[in-house]
Amino acid sequence: MDTIKHIPENGKTRIVIIGGGFAGLKLARKLVKTKYQVVLIDKNNFHQFQPLFYQVATSGLEPSSIAFPLRKIFQKRKNVHFRMAELLEVNPNVQEIYTSLGSLKYDHLVLATGVDTNYFGNKNIEEFGIPMKSVSEAIFLRNSILRNYEKALNESDPKKAANYMNIVLVGGGPTGVELAGALAEMKNEILPKDYPELDFSLMNVYLFEASDRLLSGMSEKASAKAKTYLEKLGVIVKTEARVADYDGLKISLADGEEFYSYALVWAAGVVANSIKGISEIAASRGGRLRVDMYNKVSGLNNVYALGDLALQKEGEYQNGHPQVAQVGLQQAAVLGKNLINIQQGKSMKPFHYKDRGSLATIGKNLAVADLPGIKTQGFLAWILWLFVHLMAIVGVKNRFFILINWVWNYWTSDQSLRVLIRPDKRSFTDRASKKHQIKDPVNLN
Amino acid sequence: MDTIKHIPENGKTRIVIIGGGFAGLKLARKLVKTKYQVVLIDKNNFHQFQPLFYQVATSGLEPSSIAFPLRKIFQKRKNVHFRMAELLEVNPNVQEIYTSLGSLKYDHLVLATGVDTNYFGNKNIEEFGIPMKSVSEAIFLRNSILRNYEKALNESDPKKAANYMNIVLVGGGPTGVELAGALAEMKNEILPKDYPELDFSLMNVYLFEASDRLLSGMSEKASAKAKTYLEKLGVIVKTEARVADYDGLKISLADGEEFYSYALVWAAGVVANSIKGISEIAASRGGRLRVDMYNKVSGLNNVYALGDLALQKEGEYQNGHPQVAQVGLQQAAVLGKNLINIQQGKSMKPFHYKDRGSLATIGKNLAVADLPGIKTQGFLAWILWLFVHLMAIVGVKNRFFILINWVWNYWTSDQSLRVLIRPDKRSFTDRASKKHQIKDPVNLN
Repeated sequence: MDTIKHIPENGKTRIVIIGGGFAGLKLARKLVKTKYQVVLIDKNNFHQFQPLFYQVATSGLEPSSIAFPLRKIFQKRKNVHFRMAELLEVNPNVQEIYTSLGSLKYDHLVLATGVDTNYFGNKNIEEFGIPMKSVSEAIFLRNSILRNYEKALNESDPKKAANYMNIVLVGGGPTGVELAGALAEMKNEILPKDYPELDFSLMNVYLFEASDRLLSGMSEKASAKAKTYLEKLGVIVKTEARVADYDGLKISLADGEEFYSYALVWAAGVVANSIKGISEIAASRGGRLRVDMYNKVSGLNNVYALGDLALQKEGEYQNGHPQVAQVGLQQAAVLGKNLINIQQGKSMKPFHYKDRGSLATIGKNLAVADLPGIKTQGFLAWILWLFVHLMAIVGVKNRFFILINWVWNYWTSDQSLRVLIRPDKRSFTDRASKKHQIKDPVNLN
Repeated sequence: MDTIKHIPENGKTRIVIIGGGFAGLKLARKLVKTKYQVVLIDKNNFHQFQPLFYQVATSGLEPSSIAFPLRKIFQKRKNVHFRMAELLEVNPNVQEIYTSLGSLKYDHLVLATGVDTNYFGNKNIEEFGIPMKSVSEAIFLRNSILRNYEKALNESDPKKAANYMNIVLVGGGPTGVELAGALAEMKNEILPKDYPELDFSLMNVYLFEASDRLLSGMSEKASAKAKTYLEKLGVIVKTEARVADYDGLKISLADGEEFYSYALVWAAGVVANSIKGISEIAASRGGRLRVDMYNKVSGLNNVYALGDLALQKEGEYQNGHPQVAQVGLQQAAVLGKNLINIQQGKSMKPFHYKDRGSLATIGKNLAVADLPGIKTQGFLAWILWLFVHLMAIVGVKNRFFILINWVWNYWTSDQSLRVLIRPDKRSFTDRASKKHQIKDPVNLN
């Protein structure tokens, strides 16, 4: 395999970061004005802001509002090189990675590839369920919902129409809760205006959670309030409800109950992306890589893991930290400082997680918030949620656009993004590459 | 075939409009407060603003800024019913249409399905060329350009890299001219910042036009200035250049010259969409349907055609009017008035086209404008272009967003929309439909 082109061999110590999500992007930014050469690799050419996927899925935000081109972020940074490529394998013995663009030697390797949807081995759910772990998947979910409503319109039997109108969310974490709230509001306020011929009294939004409460990573108060708010919006919430099977129409719970919907969103579990050459050595629960207090991967030199991918035991977190953005961001900040330190002959500092709290929003003016010292639910929590997320968004322009979009939606209780833009059929064939036998750097199909 | 559901039979005269583009949408809006029942059918659930596709393709605008959900437009209009469906056939003898959602009887049928890309029978160009007649195609073009640049980065041979960097536009009408200008600006101002490792001195944007001048529908002065402006931006403009073949890499002109590019945009011709049951009777040049002075299709009763699809002989337009938005919009306005007139027992008025002028933009501060009484080129024409297009955009919010986006791009000479959002791989299979053998109302694949 040839080496990736145009990455200079200039004597600088090379840090290769795989993954431009929260952790990888933060680390790369920490290293911009250092003496290191940074190579950032991601299979997409943009960073995606996951907490707002549910707004794309419910036609509340344009996809581009939450997708930030990585090249633009590092435009002026001469020591940072970005490549849109997929990691195929790591050879830690010779400190080399192999990607769809070629091979590359590293001095330090940082893995921040995150997690993907976990179907727990159920092939039907994998085939018929709709995940939401990327902006592409959020767009697909949006299109599916819109398409189902057009199909519902063509059913004379109201029960069959309901099968198209119903939406089932599986997984009572923030993703499921936030989607359920937004969809319930669509049902109550928007869809009857768009589809006056349909009978919405027959439509249900369901949220199924396998454990005994929603938002199990938050306080009991937050869980209870979230359930209350959702039920006020008309969501049918079932806890201790495990989905055993789904065939594209019928949802079968473990206790035998059955429900019907052509739209089942699967947000019930995650599993770390496997990394060939590393996972065999260091993978643990959920595929997460075991790391020490410096985020160094167990058993390897010069290989680190951050964020959802990493499993670090600390204090109360003997099964690893929660897989939330805050952890990855803080780990990236500490690792960045440590890498700068060792270049200056200073020592590394161990990582200690500071839980800054959790937030989840339900609908357009309610949320639940667990912050250090204060738990709050309701409108105040929602304002807090809005503020925290806006501040976290990369780039001034996108903050502005998101703010305007939100203000507009709030004011008008409507969304003008209910467009079903189908991908062009050419998207899945790279005819020229096939004909000229050129390797497509990112062939994910 | 069953009838389309939920369209009431309430004694009202039914006007069925096929196509929610400029003409179809305008006509539907004209008929909202009348005694007619209007059924608007389009294969997309949104109206797309074609003049700005080139901005989506060059990452200057979000797709949703120029896609307007049709249901939202007619939310409060009880006498207008929208269906997302594809027209399969018309039976004018029994005044019935057959669609992917079912059949429907009409009292009046208005066809406004427009035109699509014409490859003039060249199968290679159809396979390897990239068209731009829909927002999905504009997105695909954007993704292709971004993908090609990532591929260019992986070529050590500068000539091969150039094959990925070059872009060829075929067709010197407004589409080709506007795209060429925007791409040249990307080359000059943006791409070197995103790809500092690439040598842009080797990259070329080509514009090939088969006739002897660009913008042949405009004045000689406009043509000449457009060419001057483009060449100043670095575009290589060749007139009297016919593309004979393209194999995905090599472009062969009729005179034997060869060029190399993995990106060829085909905007060199249009052909009217064929309509089974109608085209056999009334199609003429370019597939356009012959209509009389009232836009009634020749040889049929109660069937009308508007816009690009229609061929109406009037005065100097013995081969039909130019296929531009203004014509469709004016015809729709007159037909709308006429349909209201006949319901009130008044007579119909014939259509007379008022040429309000043409505009084409080149880059971000130049344009050419032919208006009644005045021809202007340069910055003033550009301001005019901006104003006319903003006013034409449907919906207050979208106007606002487009304005902000434009102001930002102008100010920063940069675009933060360079995101390659791939369609989710599920997009092309409707697994649940296949399994449950449900007819997908709009199966275009």
